[in-house]
Amino acid sequence: MTEVSALQTERYRYEPKVPAILRQDVGMIAVKKAGETGGAGNQRELQRRFPHIYGAPAALFKRGENPPAKKRYNVGVVLSGGPAPGGHNVIAGLLDSLKQGNPRSKLYGFLNGPAGLINCAYREITPKILQPYRNTGGFDIIGSGRDKVETPDQFRAAAETAAKLDLDAVVIVGGDDSNTNAAVLAEHFASSGAKTRFIGVPKTIDGDLKNEFIETSFGFDSATKVYSQLVGNIARDACSSRKYWHFIKVMGRSASHIALECALQTQANICLISEEVEARGLTLAQITEDISRAVAARAEGGENFGVVIIPEGLVEFIPEIKKLIGELNGQMAKKADEFNALRSFQDKRAWLGANLSEESMGAFNTLPEGIAAEFLIDRDPHGNVQVSRIETERLLATLVEQRVAVLKKEGKFHGNFASYTHFFGYEGRCGAPSNFDADYCYALGKTAFMLLASGLNGYLASVRNLTAPPSKWTAGGVPLTSLMHIETRKGEPKPVIKKALVDLKGPVFRALAAKREEWALKTSYLFPGSPQYFGPAGVSDRATKTLVLESLGAKKK
Amino acid sequence: MTEVSALQTERYRYEPKVPAILRQDVGMIAVKKAGETGGAGNQRELQRRFPHIYGAPAALFKRGENPPAKKRYNVGVVLSGGPAPGGHNVIAGLLDSLKQGNPRSKLYGFLNGPAGLINCAYREITPKILQPYRNTGGFDIIGSGRDKVETPDQFRAAAETAAKLDLDAVVIVGGDDSNTNAAVLAEHFASSGAKTRFIGVPKTIDGDLKNEFIETSFGFDSATKVYSQLVGNIARDACSSRKYWHFIKVMGRSASHIALECALQTQANICLISEEVEARGLTLAQITEDISRAVAARAEGGENFGVVIIPEGLVEFIPEIKKLIGELNGQMAKKADEFNALRSFQDKRAWLGANLSEESMGAFNTLPEGIAAEFLIDRDPHGNVQVSRIETERLLATLVEQRVAVLKKEGKFHGNFASYTHFFGYEGRCGAPSNFDADYCYALGKTAFMLLASGLNGYLASVRNLTAPPSKWTAGGVPLTSLMHIETRKGEPKPVIKKALVDLKGPVFRALAAKREEWALKTSYLFPGSPQYFGPAGVSDRATKTLVLESLGAKKK
Repeated sequence: MTEVSALQTERYRYEPKVPAILRQDVGMIAVKKAGETGGAGNQRELQRRFPHIYGAPAALFKRGENPPAKKRYNVGVVLSGGPAPGGHNVIAGLLDSLKQGNPRSKLYGFLNGPAGLINCAYREITPKILQPYRNTGGFDIIGSGRDKVETPDQFRAAAETAAKLDLDAVVIVGGDDSNTNAAVLAEHFASSGAKTRFIGVPKTIDGDLKNEFIETSFGFDSATKVYSQLVGNIARDACSSRKYWHFIKVMGRSASHIALECALQTQANICLISEEVEARGLTLAQITEDISRAVAARAEGGENFGVVIIPEGLVEFIPEIKKLIGELNGQMAKKADEFNALRSFQDKRAWLGANLSEESMGAFNTLPEGIAAEFLIDRDPHGNVQVSRIETERLLATLVEQRVAVLKKEGKFHGNFASYTHFFGYEGRCGAPSNFDADYCYALGKTAFMLLASGLNGYLASVRNLTAPPSKWTAGGVPLTSLMHIETRKGEPKPVIKKALVDLKGPVFRALAAKREEWALKTSYLFPGSPQYFGPAGVSDRATKTLVLESLGAKKK
Repeated sequence: MTEVSALQTERYRYEPKVPAILRQDVGMIAVKKAGETGGAGNQRELQRRFPHIYGAPAALFKRGENPPAKKRYNVGVVLSGGPAPGGHNVIAGLLDSLKQGNPRSKLYGFLNGPAGLINCAYREITPKILQPYRNTGGFDIIGSGRDKVETPDQFRAAAETAAKLDLDAVVIVGGDDSNTNAAVLAEHFASSGAKTRFIGVPKTIDGDLKNEFIETSFGFDSATKVYSQLVGNIARDACSSRKYWHFIKVMGRSASHIALECALQTQANICLISEEVEARGLTLAQITEDISRAVAARAEGGENFGVVIIPEGLVEFIPEIKKLIGELNGQMAKKADEFNALRSFQDKRAWLGANLSEESMGAFNTLPEGIAAEFLIDRDPHGNVQVSRIETERLLATLVEQRVAVLKKEGKFHGNFASYTHFFGYEGRCGAPSNFDADYCYALGKTAFMLLASGLNGYLASVRNLTAPPSKWTAGGVPLTSLMHIETRKGEPKPVIKKALVDLKGPVFRALAAKREEWALKTSYLFPGSPQYFGPAGVSDRATKTLVLESLGAKKK
């Protein structure tokens, strides 16, 4: 990295704003234990599976002596799963605290995710190596990956790596699955008497890793700022050109927090929320009808344009399509050779007619041919439908086009309808972290160090009070098991971190619900513009609507 | 617009930086004539067609008395064609100067493009109405449109509007076609003895409206900043996740300036330039081969990822595809009923086999089926192939995927290849104007007023020396005819503004050519980040690489 952009050069100079408690010397930050914790469900089973780490108390940092923080440590760090803006600052906070504690301490970055821990592929991260990554986006300092440490061989290999590098701790930066794995590793190492402790850091742009101790996962703020910028720009184009409906899919496979946040930031006409679709058991036809009615109603006022926000995972929350996908996966796996021998789409459709339930075949037949083909062609290595490759935005645009054509014939639609589709995902995952995420991640990294240096194991770094200025943030940790419950995965009960889906009774969804009829009919767009790093704090440091509303909601309780 | 975003609130407060000469009272800005001008070609024919406006001198503003600038004027303004960031500031500069000259002067904004002039649909723009649009993106204050004033009826209607509103002048904000129309209107009104004068303002994000007097069209700076932000974010994702090649199409139907600028700002691995493809007569197979070789070479170093930038209009510059499109348009129009009766893709393909030349049929057969279908299905109201709807990014990704599979079998490719495709267009057209475009557009608006108030007709506003700070910019105008030449359109010779395509011998293309082999093989990405409005001028006010390199090139001459 010899040449860098003008913005990057400036961002290197940015000094993250640090919570007052973390500005102390690491030897003067002590853990205060704040009551024992349980799990998010199935407590007894969790206790049975995680005897060494379950039920530990939440930790809060206070000023006080902490001599172990000055010891020499060997620490590993893993970036796991999809990138999120701010990952590099987690490493920066971790490294700075580690070196402040003891300059001879070492930080090893495992390459390309947990695979690096298994294969003992690493790079020592020194302050010099880190420097060009401070306050930058991406996970490219060491890469990321989606492996898990799960099999006995993998556990053995990870243990060998830990022994070889004499690791005191490993910090795992990841989402719900990766932090579940961190808990499993913490328990496994503890049960085998190994000294290596595991600390998690809550990362995911999807925003679905949170509970009372984790107000937001890092990356959500930056990513939604980019997506909202783009949705706002497109909304401005829509009301300037006045002739297109834009169907915009945004990331969020399980939870619709991103879509919801973008809707609140831009006041787009329509925003679908997967959780609501599932709760209300909406069919594809009903969703199409709702959008089509808005199209027709807006056309009455001469507004033949609009913006629809769609969460990436929507199709899996539409009961009939979820069932269809389940049956497709089952049948295509069971009779793989038979299915794979079929060449034309017509032959495949005929085969499905004989192998799917009537209901699922009916659902399949409602799909436009191009989209239906995507269900069959793009399958993952296990033969499953690749939901993330299904163009839901095009599916809905096509169905609405067909429906408004019918309404036109019936004299119920007097306007024009033309559409464009967009998918925003990769554009936001690796943007430069916002000031909020730069600050938050740096604090999370420092917090992770304090947790491991305080001898804690199986904790998730927790920095709270995030709507206040960073100086007033609190820092501490919470046992990973307190976020877990038991889910059935592939027919087996499995302890996993519970995903925080959009709460249909929560303040964020209610903010949308209160305004969406108005926004659907009346053009009320807001244009958030591009993420700003300088200038008035109201612009450069503003928090997400989700965080603000949830924080207000929590205070009311 | 009662509720606005935090950034918008701040941008309302932004005061565009104004060239020294335009900071004078309008009554103290005089036109200095700077030599007669010709056309860009076919001078005699242009002179014949534009006797009233051809050959007028270029105008440069200098300090001096200009009493007519204090008169009361009625002025119309039209936003024409695709939106570009800064259009609202052109209106702001125009209105502020008009009202400074005489508070009783009036500005009429014609609604939805030239159609508003024809239909006398307008909105008076007062300072109060304008206020919430200052320094904002979009064209939504009055909307835009793609109509032209061309037929005798339309000329008559426009004349009636001008008479009814007693218009002294109309300012047309548009690209090459719209400014061609401005020239036609200027000549038409002058020849009929009407007082209404026409002044053009150079707008297009595509950057293809420029010559020695027009250093850049407005909007190019802002739009390429957004596109480069997104390409950079995706590049950072590519080198973090290390498993995808991203094929990114950016706007630019005729010229590849946007693609070229994004490539220089991000140092993407590969950037195709339509003008070069045409000049070298490259086939689709050759382009595929070039990309596939880079994929294979990067895989040797373990880099199974990359970024390819593709200009929107590429397919029309590949000689074989251009010929195919021409034949398709011809045959589908000639035998429309016959073709439209065909239902299945197979039937259509068979029909084409009997109706296209062997060469074009060969080209058609190289297309993956999904893309080939797009050539046939999405046709415009005249039955023509809709080039902008062809997914060139997917076409190339698919062809490369097929080609590297062959290379793998031949033992010439040892990596993995997976791809994602993106198209960035609407995301950038309506972003908030960068500081540069906010300043430039405001100056263009003030300049347009000075031109019309100085009695000039058929001029394009010209603000120059743009790589210097705004205080040192010069302002004036240049006859629209000096940008024009004769082209054959639909078999007829027609005077039009000559598009400024990428100059393959110019400094901008050469900057790419000098580095592209290195960038293809070695990951050298730059991450420009999101457009900034505050903070260090090196970040918030930086000029495009295109402008800087062309300006350096011009100075060397």
